[in-house]
Amino acid sequence: MTGAGLDVATDARSLEAARADKSGQRATGRPMALVRAHSVADVQQCLRIAHARGLPVVPRGAGTGLAGGAMGGAGRLVLDLAGLDRILEIDAADGIAVVEAGVLNGDLNDALAPLGLWYAPDPASRAICSIGGNIATNAGGLLCAKYGVTREAVLGLSIVLADGTLLRTGRRTVKGVAGYDLTALFTGSEGTLGVIVEATVRVRPLPPGAPVTVAAAFPDVEAAASACSAVTAARLAPSILELMGADAFSRVADFLGPDALAGTPAADVAPGESFVVAQCDGRGAAEEAAGVLAAFASHGGRVELTEDAATGERLLAIRRAFHGALEARGSVLIEDVSVPRSALPAMFRAIEAISARTGIPIPTIAHAGDGNLHPNFVVEGDEPDDAVWSAADELFRAALALGGTLTGEHGVGVLKRRWLADELGPEQVEWQRRIKSLFDPSGILNPDVMFEPGMS
Amino acid sequence: MTGAGLDVATDARSLEAARADKSGQRATGRPMALVRAHSVADVQQCLRIAHARGLPVVPRGAGTGLAGGAMGGAGRLVLDLAGLDRILEIDAADGIAVVEAGVLNGDLNDALAPLGLWYAPDPASRAICSIGGNIATNAGGLLCAKYGVTREAVLGLSIVLADGTLLRTGRRTVKGVAGYDLTALFTGSEGTLGVIVEATVRVRPLPPGAPVTVAAAFPDVEAAASACSAVTAARLAPSILELMGADAFSRVADFLGPDALAGTPAADVAPGESFVVAQCDGRGAAEEAAGVLAAFASHGGRVELTEDAATGERLLAIRRAFHGALEARGSVLIEDVSVPRSALPAMFRAIEAISARTGIPIPTIAHAGDGNLHPNFVVEGDEPDDAVWSAADELFRAALALGGTLTGEHGVGVLKRRWLADELGPEQVEWQRRIKSLFDPSGILNPDVMFEPGMS
Ligand SMILES: Cc1cc2nc3c(=O)[nH]c(=O)nc-3n(C[C@H](O)[C@H](O)[C@H](O)COP(=O)(O)OP(=O)(O)OC[C@H]3O[C@@H](n4cnc5c(N)ncnc54)[C@H](O)[C@@H]3O)c2cc1C
Ligand SMILES: Cc1cc2nc3c(=O)[nH]c(=O)nc-3n(C[C@H](O)[C@H](O)[C@H](O)COP(=O)(O)OP(=O)(O)OC[C@H]3O[C@@H](n4cnc5c(N)ncnc54)[C@H](O)[C@@H]3O)c2cc1C
Repeated sequence: MTGAGLDVATDARSLEAARADKSGQRATGRPMALVRAHSVADVQQCLRIAHARGLPVVPRGAGTGLAGGAMGGAGRLVLDLAGLDRILEIDAADGIAVVEAGVLNGDLNDALAPLGLWYAPDPASRAICSIGGNIATNAGGLLCAKYGVTREAVLGLSIVLADGTLLRTGRRTVKGVAGYDLTALFTGSEGTLGVIVEATVRVRPLPPGAPVTVAAAFPDVEAAASACSAVTAARLAPSILELMGADAFSRVADFLGPDALAGTPAADVAPGESFVVAQCDGRGAAEEAAGVLAAFASHGGRVELTEDAATGERLLAIRRAFHGALEARGSVLIEDVSVPRSALPAMFRAIEAISARTGIPIPTIAHAGDGNLHPNFVVEGDEPDDAVWSAADELFRAALALGGTLTGEHGVGVLKRRWLADELGPEQVEWQRRIKSLFDPSGILNPDVMFEPGMS
Repeated sequence: MTGAGLDVATDARSLEAARADKSGQRATGRPMALVRAHSVADVQQCLRIAHARGLPVVPRGAGTGLAGGAMGGAGRLVLDLAGLDRILEIDAADGIAVVEAGVLNGDLNDALAPLGLWYAPDPASRAICSIGGNIATNAGGLLCAKYGVTREAVLGLSIVLADGTLLRTGRRTVKGVAGYDLTALFTGSEGTLGVIVEATVRVRPLPPGAPVTVAAAFPDVEAAASACSAVTAARLAPSILELMGADAFSRVADFLGPDALAGTPAADVAPGESFVVAQCDGRGAAEEAAGVLAAFASHGGRVELTEDAATGERLLAIRRAFHGALEARGSVLIEDVSVPRSALPAMFRAIEAISARTGIPIPTIAHAGDGNLHPNFVVEGDEPDDAVWSAADELFRAALALGGTLTGEHGVGVLKRRWLADELGPEQVEWQRRIKSLFDPSGILNPDVMFEPGMS
């Protein structure tokens, strides 16, 4: 493979790093090699070789995934796309950017900001995750209740298929219905159907004016969840609506220290209180924020409104620090269930019950605007043991029983494939497998991800 | 088939009606039968029989399509879904409706309005087209630049596959990434992969306050198109931005008569002027409309703004009457190209050049907010002749050369399949065909639609 002119690493450090993503897990064994692609041709060549030799390939963006989808284990080639890092085009008039897959979400936004533009899908990991990884997982973020998830922002893709051929899908126009929507099929396919090398994405004008932020503390998490449901029911559409359960909030507060909270409404949150932060943007933001404030207050929230953008940003930084705060204190299993919005209070109740029954702390935050919760199971030791997995199993069943899904935005990966058929049913899983076999007949692309091994 | 308990019509009138859609074309020959489904079980049974006997099936919603996708010709069974007309559920708290495929778009909105809700995708045909047909074509509409096309509104589907089995895709939650996005794959598949029988769609709160409407007359269509581009460039996002070329406007004005225009800004449009109507909604509508007005004025428009909702509605009715006005005066070939927004003036230039060169009048309107144009070729006689098709061929080539697409919202159908490979390239068409073969291996579902006959 070195002869092929590819940049291949086999040193222990590189391979060790490629065994893990940010889920806190790592693959069994070390991958056989790490191939660092610097061009589309590199990706094609790597796949041609892998295809010819039947080598399993794990596509890897920035490795920030939380589902174990980019972890290279024994016998795997890890194909690192971080080197595909060029922004190829920004067309402000048409609201389009063309980027290579390895470009970081935050870097694209840094390039867009001076033009008054932004790329809307904003995972909390935006500074460190790649656009290609975002597309492969159909990532969400804080702003997606109002501005849509990654799928809504992707117009076209270039994909290297399992045998190394290049396929282009989609278009440069906002609308278009010529043929089946292969772009959407590859969005969220977690590296199992092809390797995304380039994307044409939609960018938007930054909303006019400064955002208005509302923060509220609630005596219990169900009241907080009901208040969030009331916001939507009142036809308010804040761009951000984030809920932190009491345990989640206090862990972040401890981690960040009092200075990070001082002078913001977060400093006044009492122990045991849940915290909600909402932000309204665009024309009419102040009026909308007043409506959010009223909805919070009528559900027993102690509320505060700020028109100061810097204070608003500090409040969001508290929310964004959640993952880091937990990671710093040991291991966690980060879950990602999503339920119909009205079921948010019931889902919080179910989580509290699971935590009480098992004795496992489960600090939880939610993208409350779209019913997506991140319950975090605090793990004793290095990896989740059977007790944690059985508590997670209860969580998934509770979410499905409420009409929800296993995963709102992180993907199935290796960690949730066991439960996929519980959600989709055997009939749909069978069709999903057929699609996998159509695009990757010899099964070399991320073979550990999405589906249980065995019958195919 | 009668023995199977299905409602089957073979009378000349029913079969004759099933030969045509609203494209102005009709299939060669009459279908062998029209099966009127009244339940999901009917659809399954019809397909089981068709599958066993190898009979080609043409799924048909309300028959308002403009691409010839629902026209039943000789040897075809037409499967009419109009009888699947129940709204199964409206959940205001979760912003979800569950409907059978034959429910008319307008009927769903009538049921939602008293709850303060609406279903956003609004084809101009909304009063007469079905939700299932909208999903099968991924329909757009006047409001979709701001609120998204059908794909963005569909959360889950029930689909009867070619062999009669029922497949459920998607979910009831706003977000979810478990498995490949089969819902998106079936959206826009034009009845070639399966028959949509039920859909879970997203509904939204009606925007608060009354809309504000801006109308403008421009000396020529390029100035009008530039003014529309300027609106987007100024970061204004009107919910509606519709452009009518001078020929299009005057044909509609003649058709509707002076009373329909009286008392609105449309009454002041002079011969040879192009007409643009924009509408802003939600909080901050007045401020946004003032921005639109300024952009129009600075591009040479004679502008007028109205906060009167009834006048706004009358102005939109003029736009919506376009298809009826042309149809009433003879036959037309309705096209549907879409280009990157900034290419709108160039596309209008190309259309004028084609019209001048061929002598065929091509009155044109555009959903200017997303670059989607409907050039209408006025046809002598009953059906477009070779001269019209060769002018259409020039149109498609011009759109593709500008980075555009053959079809922004109407679909490929029978009428545009000849050009599909020009847009997608042979490689992608081959993958599209493989998807078709995966879901419909014996090729009984809408075999005349999307792909050229021949090699498969
Ligand atoms: C602190 C923190 C906060 C987070 N917040 C969010 C959040 O708010 N919302 C959210 O959705 N996620 C969040 N995540 C998860 C993660 O950042 C996202 O899943 C992100 O989209 C992964 O991007 P990546 O480039 O790191 O992909 P990786 O982790 O490298 O890979 C993720 C998956 O995509 C595949 N893949 C990656 N690149 C490609 C490619 N070019 N072609 C084909 N397949 C590819 C991999 O095989 C793997 O299956 C968070 C993670 C962290 C650590
Ligand atoms: C006056 C007028 C204005 C229009 N304006 C617009 C507009 O603004 N935007 C727009 O996008 N379109 C517009 N159209 C076109 C048309 O209304 C849309 O394409 C609409 O989505 C078709 O719906 P339908 O129920 O009439 O489908 P049909 O015409 O019956 O079928 C259309 C296609 O979908 C397939 N199909 C229908 N139902 C199903 C089903 N349940 N399962 C599987 N396949 C199915 C058919 O096989 C066919 O290929 C307009 C048409 C007219 C006449």
